[in-house]
Amino acid sequence: MKIRFYNARILSMNGNMDITPDSELWVFDDRISYIGKIKNDSDIIWDRQIDVKGNLLMPGFKDAHTHSGMTFLRSMADDLPLDRWLNEQIFPREAKLTGEDIKMCTMLAIMEYLSSGITAIFDMYLTPETIDEACIAGGMRCVQVGGMNNFSQSLKEQEEWYKKINAGNPLTSYMFGYHAEYTCSKELLMGLSDLAHKYSAPVFGHNSETASEVRGCIERYKMTPTQLADSLGLFDNGGGGYHCVFLSDEDIAIFRERGLSIVLNPGSNTKLASGIADIRRYLDEGIDLAIGTDGPASNNCLDMFREMFLVTGLSKLKEEDASVVDANDVLIMATKGGAKAMGLSDCDCLKEGKKADIIMIDLMSPNMQPLNNITKNIVYSGSKINVKMTMIDGVIRYEDREYNIGIEPEAVYSYVGDLADRLR
Amino acid sequence: MKIRFYNARILSMNGNMDITPDSELWVFDDRISYIGKIKNDSDIIWDRQIDVKGNLLMPGFKDAHTHSGMTFLRSMADDLPLDRWLNEQIFPREAKLTGEDIKMCTMLAIMEYLSSGITAIFDMYLTPETIDEACIAGGMRCVQVGGMNNFSQSLKEQEEWYKKINAGNPLTSYMFGYHAEYTCSKELLMGLSDLAHKYSAPVFGHNSETASEVRGCIERYKMTPTQLADSLGLFDNGGGGYHCVFLSDEDIAIFRERGLSIVLNPGSNTKLASGIADIRRYLDEGIDLAIGTDGPASNNCLDMFREMFLVTGLSKLKEEDASVVDANDVLIMATKGGAKAMGLSDCDCLKEGKKADIIMIDLMSPNMQPLNNITKNIVYSGSKINVKMTMIDGVIRYEDREYNIGIEPEAVYSYVGDLADRLR
Repeated sequence: MKIRFYNARILSMNGNMDITPDSELWVFDDRISYIGKIKNDSDIIWDRQIDVKGNLLMPGFKDAHTHSGMTFLRSMADDLPLDRWLNEQIFPREAKLTGEDIKMCTMLAIMEYLSSGITAIFDMYLTPETIDEACIAGGMRCVQVGGMNNFSQSLKEQEEWYKKINAGNPLTSYMFGYHAEYTCSKELLMGLSDLAHKYSAPVFGHNSETASEVRGCIERYKMTPTQLADSLGLFDNGGGGYHCVFLSDEDIAIFRERGLSIVLNPGSNTKLASGIADIRRYLDEGIDLAIGTDGPASNNCLDMFREMFLVTGLSKLKEEDASVVDANDVLIMATKGGAKAMGLSDCDCLKEGKKADIIMIDLMSPNMQPLNNITKNIVYSGSKINVKMTMIDGVIRYEDREYNIGIEPEAVYSYVGDLADRLR
Repeated sequence: MKIRFYNARILSMNGNMDITPDSELWVFDDRISYIGKIKNDSDIIWDRQIDVKGNLLMPGFKDAHTHSGMTFLRSMADDLPLDRWLNEQIFPREAKLTGEDIKMCTMLAIMEYLSSGITAIFDMYLTPETIDEACIAGGMRCVQVGGMNNFSQSLKEQEEWYKKINAGNPLTSYMFGYHAEYTCSKELLMGLSDLAHKYSAPVFGHNSETASEVRGCIERYKMTPTQLADSLGLFDNGGGGYHCVFLSDEDIAIFRERGLSIVLNPGSNTKLASGIADIRRYLDEGIDLAIGTDGPASNNCLDMFREMFLVTGLSKLKEEDASVVDANDVLIMATKGGAKAMGLSDCDCLKEGKKADIIMIDLMSPNMQPLNNITKNIVYSGSKINVKMTMIDGVIRYEDREYNIGIEPEAVYSYVGDLADRLR
């Protein structure tokens, strides 16, 4: 397929945050083949030419931490602290899910990601094989990460999924991971470290999400979750942590020195009353930051615009300083930072040769006007309503509120609605 | 006009938060004439019959504090503390605005309100007569409030506007008000109190938005802003305050005993790093709460969904308790609480005889599925993308992303864009 976008504003994020007007961008199959000034080439037979009408093309957002399959739980069990929420509401219901259930719940999440301009997800959930099927069917770029704990996902299974998914469709991949220190024995984490060394692979897991999690780990091991993981060699080949609300000075040093990524989840940390991460300091220390929505049961929505506003807004509240964490830094976290964490070096910015993971932001909307500062408009005022198109791997999967995911939206709603009724 | 909605879920908010399925609602001219079970009446000649397809009808949101005319400043001057932001960025530019400029900037805001399901605004800005023209032209229900300070809007002008606007189109009205203690002399506030007594009228103003504002007032008067206003008799006929982030025990007692409304502005308080209001306590004390976006220069968007999430989310963070301020309480603030503050007793809920200020929420969207709990879905996961229709005073002003406001959107964007360029 050859698709030409013309009359575009382009925020390439290739080395700077400049926006070039009157530009065009060509997609040949899954990659960007040209980006620059207007260029007519009458020899090319286009499958489609799209007049962008002065709207904005930019790299798609990367949702760098989520549990897509939890959509069935949205608004089913709110307003509880994290430990009770997990043990009383989540785990018992999850035990009843089939692989097909999780596939369809993931499909519902994919629709929401597309509507929020998200072109890649870093997903941790129960049945990697059916999650992989959903992402390939729906066209969502997905890096799955092991959610191993004492009750599910053995080391053997992780190794099998690692080999199988990474050898399969290039749209999807698999990383080693663990649910969290508090749900994994030390032996299990040591086994995971062996696997990571065997494949020279990075490792991710939930880390320091709540103050009580950190206290518990210190009681058990006289180390923080970060120190424990590092002491076991889990981070010898990189990786990082989800949430990271409560990091010590030593933890921050480990993240910095090992080049680990912190994936921020401000919506979930807000709704579950976990706390506010010290984002300004992480930025000052030069740590790679990414942004995730967390799962739809804890957030409760999969909306990168909400997360971006919260990343800067909560930092301003925490520091009592309206000038901290500016909009451009937030956009970098939501795109390039996510790509870095997820190992998607081909999807981080718009550039010739890069993957065509592109979104179109509708600037002709009241909340995007006037165009005093487009990147600030996106971070401070943007909404799902502004996503006009979401392209992944060169395929338009969402356009003007219509989905191209190989299944009718109503069929997805119906399946997940029935499932929720059954498990409520 | 006679409009029939059928196949609706209805959240009437008339005495409870129940949602009735398979319902219908009739609008005759500007009022609701029937609400209840399916009812065929072949004698009625309908102007339009709308199949709601199981989506939700509910009362429109009331944006109980805003400065609509500031849209030209969106993203022009961010990331500054409140005092520098006002004195260096806002006031000098505002001095150059004409009445027509403010009318068109207000029209841009009206479009955004409609897209967010907002059916009434409590607006404070510089040129009440042209703001009134914009709201009548665009069909937005508007209660204006005086923004008097030492430099603009005299008592004489307020009295003239009070008489003129309240005698004009019933879609719009006018209340006495003051910008804030720190921009008004004591003499001016005393004069305003005389006016409020003359007309037995409530008074609103910015109140205790920042810690430094409260400190300054105590230095000047040995009283908080609330105590000062009350001591001058400003609240003898009711009214209330915008923001109210830093209230003392005595202040809270004044609000409770006088039946004053607190209008919360969490988006603005977050972006300007002002702080988090003690919403849980205000609720516990039984104070009437409403929600406003504040102006688009400080927020930077006019989105009731963002505000609703922040009202509960920031309360959870402040209290370190995920169970505080539940979704239904937030919806009541955003609708009935706003109507109470604004004196719109005919617009608070859906009921026969009430004004037809109604919105339709699209439940067939991925972020609204499954329907485990619709009110939680709206507060925790809702977005402008879910607003399918906004009706004010019986007229559909927004439907499927099209506006019915008597002017083309592009003309509004063009005017405000040129204005912003001129003032930048």
